Amino acid sequence: SDPNGRRSPPPVVHYQLNNLTSTPNPIANKERILILTPTTKFYQEYWDNILKFTYPHEHISLGFIIPKTTDGNKATTELQKAIAKTQSGPESDRFQSITIIRQDFEPPLTSQSEAERHKLENQKIRRTSMARARNSLLFTTLGPHTSWVLWLDSDIIETPPGLIQDLTSFDKPIIVPNCFQRFYNTDTNAEEVRPYDFNSWRDSDTAQELAAKMGPDEILLEGYSEMATYRTLMAHLGDTDSRRDQRKIMPLDGVGGTALMVKAEVHRDGAMFPPFPFYHLVETEGFAKMARRLGWESWGLPNYFVYHYNE
Amino acid sequence: SDPNGRRSPPPVVHYQLNNLTSTPNPIANKERILILTPTTKFYQEYWDNILKFTYPHEHISLGFIIPKTTDGNKATTELQKAIAKTQSGPESDRFQSITIIRQDFEPPLTSQSEAERHKLENQKIRRTSMARARNSLLFTTLGPHTSWVLWLDSDIIETPPGLIQDLTSFDKPIIVPNCFQRFYNTDTNAEEVRPYDFNSWRDSDTAQELAAKMGPDEILLEGYSEMATYRTLMAHLGDTDSRRDQRKIMPLDGVGGTALMVKAEVHRDGAMFPPFPFYHLVETEGFAKMARRLGWESWGLPNYFVYHYNE
Ligand SMILES: Nc1nc2c(ncn2[C@@H]2O[C@H](COP(=O)(O)OP(=O)(O)O)[C@@H](O)[C@H]2O)c(=O)[nH]1
Ligand SMILES: Nc1nc2c(ncn2[C@@H]2O[C@H](COP(=O)(O)OP(=O)(O)O)[C@@H](O)[C@H]2O)c(=O)[nH]1
Ligand SMILES: [Mn+2]
Ligand SMILES: [Mn+2]
Repeated sequence: SDPNGRRSPPPVVHYQLNNLTSTPNPIANKERILILTPTTKFYQEYWDNILKFTYPHEHISLGFIIPKTTDGNKATTELQKAIAKTQSGPESDRFQSITIIRQDFEPPLTSQSEAERHKLENQKIRRTSMARARNSLLFTTLGPHTSWVLWLDSDIIETPPGLIQDLTSFDKPIIVPNCFQRFYNTDTNAEEVRPYDFNSWRDSDTAQELAAKMGPDEILLEGYSEMATYRTLMAHLGDTDSRRDQRKIMPLDGVGGTALMVKAEVHRDGAMFPPFPFYHLVETEGFAKMARRLGWESWGLPNYFVYHYNE
Repeated sequence: SDPNGRRSPPPVVHYQLNNLTSTPNPIANKERILILTPTTKFYQEYWDNILKFTYPHEHISLGFIIPKTTDGNKATTELQKAIAKTQSGPESDRFQSITIIRQDFEPPLTSQSEAERHKLENQKIRRTSMARARNSLLFTTLGPHTSWVLWLDSDIIETPPGLIQDLTSFDKPIIVPNCFQRFYNTDTNAEEVRPYDFNSWRDSDTAQELAAKMGPDEILLEGYSEMATYRTLMAHLGDTDSRRDQRKIMPLDGVGGTALMVKAEVHRDGAMFPPFPFYHLVETEGFAKMARRLGWESWGLPNYFVYHYNE
């Protein structure tokens, strides 16, 4: 309001979606990237990693959704501390804008150890809850000026610094790197890597047959011997040789969400993370299927790695 | 940036979705309403009608999506003229904010006469295209502070001025008034009203059986004798007697979108307008089904009327 207490005229904003691009050369076209991170725990390594992104930070916005729990409060405090430091630091480090959403529903599992999270019987309720968190975050932060959405889990602690340029350079509507994990192999006494995320796959006849026999509310899950799908898992195709072709690309039917680049147009068309069984798939795998129904294909980079925290 | 050319620290915004309410008493709770209007043509009567809304305009935001066509350009110019007048007029008339999105895809039908629009063979492609327009508008305008979304078509030219208070007072996740049309009856030589929108219905066994026999990409449509569904249509239950109970309420399985009030939480959970057949339903009818899958029920007000333009 002005000094006389009058409300100023309301802002009218006019956006030309038809002029908004998402191209293989996003820096030249000043395309805005929205990084979305559902968060239950804050990892300093996550923050340090995105700080090193070479994509101009002035065109990167960040969005977080954090549950309203004791752990969530702790994560929020730590995140805000990291933000405060970055935004008062060197100009080129500062991100364009940051949104923190506190979640209005409880995550369904109280214990969040990796073993507990990955138990088959906990998966459906857990992934349903994560899908709702992703949708809330997406629906409230995607703007008319966003060109690309990079989904990046809060426990992804290492990626190439050119991640955004590398993924967008393929000009695909949906593209996922291969999510691995570093660990100390006590047999070989060496630091090694192993696959972590099994949600990026190509479909199989066996999986299709399993789905055909399922009740309407049952879901197919990947990475459980109780339910062998014989899908082609991108996780198993990763070549760790240093001379590997990092630009090798494969079509996918399901995608994981640990790191996932999506043209904003795909989301705007309506592609979200189904919290209900959609063709017997939920969350990020259901997202790939829904995008397909909207005419958008998913792709994977088996030899391009990002790394998940090791508890 | 400041006078020395330094970028100012990026904005950090923190939203507590858990404190955001959508209650039967939205004015007292200062709840923000987002009115969303897909638009191919501007009607002055639409604007005059929303101007008369008694809900405090300072808590109403407007969002429009308009195709990038000759007709769309005309509608945009006319809309902007109406906006300019309102925002420079009396303070209490001014809306909180207004977003105009120009659409990056073409509406599939060039002829847009009522007769042409309603032909059965044109429905699937037309409603698919409208679903995409609704999703683009929704995904880019829904904010973390929005409590309610009121979908209102651009050709809804008359509603009670208390529409927002009336619809929210029922405290339902999804609620639709009955959309009628005024016309001059040449038989009786009198101004009369007749049902217009047939998309609000309760399901029937016949419709379920039709759906069960359909191929995966076929859709059920309402209001076509070629495809008699025997659903209970709210349009036919409207009582126009002046002493009618305007608060009469009925559960629905499909909803129309000419006027449609939705708790923002329903959309945030992921409920959108399927442009693909979802349980053989698309667009607003598919939305009701998707919301149901997410645990949200739809309701209708057979005796509470809004009016569609008569071409
Ligand atoms: N806001 C929110 N974030 C969640 C919830 N559950 C998991 N996350 C986050 O979602 C991402 C994936 O979850 P995580 O437990 O690491 O999955 P996993 O690595 O596949 O076992 C991580 O960034 C989590 O912090 C939830 O209920 N709410
Ligand atoms: N942006 C956009 N709006 C559309 C499109 N098609 C229809 N509309 C709008 O969507 C609403 C419903 O369309 P309309 O043709 O009136 O549907 P009907 O009354 O059911 O025949 C109206 O407000 C139209 O102006 C489209 O392709 N793009
Ligand atoms: Mn994880
Ligand atoms: Mn209409």
